[in-house]
Amino acid sequence: MKNAFYAQSGGVTAVINASACGVIETARRNAGRIGTVYAGLNGIIGALTEDLIDTGRESDADIAALRSTPSGAFGSCRYKLKSLDKNRREYERLIEVFKAHDIGYFFYNGGGDSADTCFKVSQLSQSMGYPLQAIHVPKTVDNDLPITDCCPGFGSVAKYVAVSALEASFDVRSMARTSTKVFVLEVMGRHAGWIAAAGGLIEQHGIPVVILFPEIEFDRAAFIAQVDRKVKEYGYCTVVVSEGCHHPDGTFLAEQGTRDAFGHAQLGGAAPVVAGMVKEALGHKFHWATADYLQRAARHIASRTDVEQAYAVGRRAVELALDGANAVMPTIERVSDAPYEWRIGSAPLSEVANVEKFMPRDFITEDGFGITDACRRYLQPLIQGEDAPTYRDGLPVYVTLKNALVEKKLTPFDIKA
Amino acid sequence: MKNAFYAQSGGVTAVINASACGVIETARRNAGRIGTVYAGLNGIIGALTEDLIDTGRESDADIAALRSTPSGAFGSCRYKLKSLDKNRREYERLIEVFKAHDIGYFFYNGGGDSADTCFKVSQLSQSMGYPLQAIHVPKTVDNDLPITDCCPGFGSVAKYVAVSALEASFDVRSMARTSTKVFVLEVMGRHAGWIAAAGGLIEQHGIPVVILFPEIEFDRAAFIAQVDRKVKEYGYCTVVVSEGCHHPDGTFLAEQGTRDAFGHAQLGGAAPVVAGMVKEALGHKFHWATADYLQRAARHIASRTDVEQAYAVGRRAVELALDGANAVMPTIERVSDAPYEWRIGSAPLSEVANVEKFMPRDFITEDGFGITDACRRYLQPLIQGEDAPTYRDGLPVYVTLKNALVEKKLTPFDIKA
Repeated sequence: MKNAFYAQSGGVTAVINASACGVIETARRNAGRIGTVYAGLNGIIGALTEDLIDTGRESDADIAALRSTPSGAFGSCRYKLKSLDKNRREYERLIEVFKAHDIGYFFYNGGGDSADTCFKVSQLSQSMGYPLQAIHVPKTVDNDLPITDCCPGFGSVAKYVAVSALEASFDVRSMARTSTKVFVLEVMGRHAGWIAAAGGLIEQHGIPVVILFPEIEFDRAAFIAQVDRKVKEYGYCTVVVSEGCHHPDGTFLAEQGTRDAFGHAQLGGAAPVVAGMVKEALGHKFHWATADYLQRAARHIASRTDVEQAYAVGRRAVELALDGANAVMPTIERVSDAPYEWRIGSAPLSEVANVEKFMPRDFITEDGFGITDACRRYLQPLIQGEDAPTYRDGLPVYVTLKNALVEKKLTPFDIKA
Repeated sequence: MKNAFYAQSGGVTAVINASACGVIETARRNAGRIGTVYAGLNGIIGALTEDLIDTGRESDADIAALRSTPSGAFGSCRYKLKSLDKNRREYERLIEVFKAHDIGYFFYNGGGDSADTCFKVSQLSQSMGYPLQAIHVPKTVDNDLPITDCCPGFGSVAKYVAVSALEASFDVRSMARTSTKVFVLEVMGRHAGWIAAAGGLIEQHGIPVVILFPEIEFDRAAFIAQVDRKVKEYGYCTVVVSEGCHHPDGTFLAEQGTRDAFGHAQLGGAAPVVAGMVKEALGHKFHWATADYLQRAARHIASRTDVEQAYAVGRRAVELALDGANAVMPTIERVSDAPYEWRIGSAPLSEVANVEKFMPRDFITEDGFGITDACRRYLQPLIQGEDAPTYRDGLPVYVTLKNALVEKKLTPFDIKA
């Protein structure tokens, strides 16, 4: 009977811990077939440095509480293993640590980069003759993984963005007669406009919305004309701008100039840029908000659909492992839009790694500033349902685990992070 | 039997409509003693231009739904009547409109500026021999009105800020090993640090927080040293910066350079400034969020205490009017901290107008970066309780009223707004 290793990777979400909960509870329910679940302290780094958390030391109640706790309970990291050629040493170290702790299952909970890592670890373990089953557990607010209908983490951000944009639009509508006429909300999503698209869900409530997608090259004149039209018709307008929105030459509306560990530009600050353009061209008073971490951590307004799917992919990952699967990822398959039905499928990692899924053009209106009915049918079920946490003294009750480390068996290993 | 006029003034909140609900429902319950409640379309401007909404045309269900709808249902405005000397014409026009529509009760729902206007209208009506009872209904997220223990609107923003800061802090704690170490959240509050103080409520959950109050002159070196200490001890740190935070010479950390109709500087953008300072001095990777309207519109996470108090001051305003009161404001009186007990009192407008209440120095820690136990005892009850709206298709159900206008009886009146 082998032990398991579980790690959280990249930006965390409101529901990644629900996936952890699914993994650990399912392992506990199969205690005769799977040993201890070790979690990496700060993600894959914990495996390299042999900082392994013994999740067996956590109570059932605390593990259950993960389901309603945002963030990464074991710590995550932005640390991408280089290619096998360039840093075989790190992959070999992983295998050494797995071997030392009798780990036969590798559950990696992350986005596209970690799907790639998971795939490579699976390949290397085979070539080294070490029996390891590597299962990727999908997670990304950006919703840009291929094959799966949606990504756990996205539905809750989409709900946060739709609710926040609705509320702020009611606010600006109240103020528009003498004050603010344009409200700009900046949202995440990197190169994919899925999160920004969620802002379009409030149009059904009669709110004028202009969306700036990363998939559509920014056209300042067309944008200003669109805002002008909406303000003339409604008296006010809400703009949802994706952090990844960019000029035709590829430069982002606002780059902070710094890059993260994966070499991606660190985005942020598009909202004040866009608001300033409106002010300059049309003279309207504006307000802007940049939700940043608030959006992806907002467990208090999580989508119940998202929470259930996040748990389900965690549970299925363990079931797949016990069924002998390797180098796969549980996926969410949509059976029908309305009523919304879904089931869990799976996809080979070879088809998942390094593929980004963008908004299809037919999800974006012809003018490039809104979402189509097809997009609405896609998004609507994903924000469905509420799953409020318990509150104590006015604040949500979120769990902080003990995160007790197991004794190290190997010599120290230096990483550069 | 006289009619009533109700108007919403200044920045709206998550619960100002709950006060409107309290006013209108109480008037309806006293239908034999008070006539129609007319609401000003876009606040006091509606009275000047004779754009009066007949709230009698709204169903009981829609009026009840105001209790859980954020923003100003009748429209608000930033439009300050000048002093009586400078613009007696506007005050006289108000009285003319009130006379034309047989209005004997003036309910003005706003902050310090509108308390002042309400007081002046009351004085002028007396000097003109027109019988009018003017009652101010307190509202401001800034919590800076005097006499009342707290201001309706504040508790919900405080809850939003505490919940958001808690969730984002869990996020940055997950990421800190290799990525973001400092998260900066910018909040509203103008010259008062009440909203920023709410961020301090998460320290009880073991979160390292540094608060920048407008009441404390910004000291860059001391701030950086404080962040450095927290990051060294905890591995990460959350900074809550008030938009009103300023340098010793009075300049705000970030001024957008524009001013609103009251001549106040339009603030916003302190978060990236502060984050940049941390990066420059300590090299830490940062994220920042500017919640702006999201915080004051966030009815979905409103404090139940706040909703109840907002309703209660609206109800009491009508009761005071029916008791013959004039030039007063219902106040919230704290009876005890724990268990929290409160009751409604009242204060003469002469003592309310043009007085701002700041954080007392003993609510701020000696180092200037945190809140004391006394402050915590004050804030804790105000974020207590949840009052989630109903949801449909994943979004809160917020009401949009018919806002039907009554026929005008007077000649048009030009205002400059």
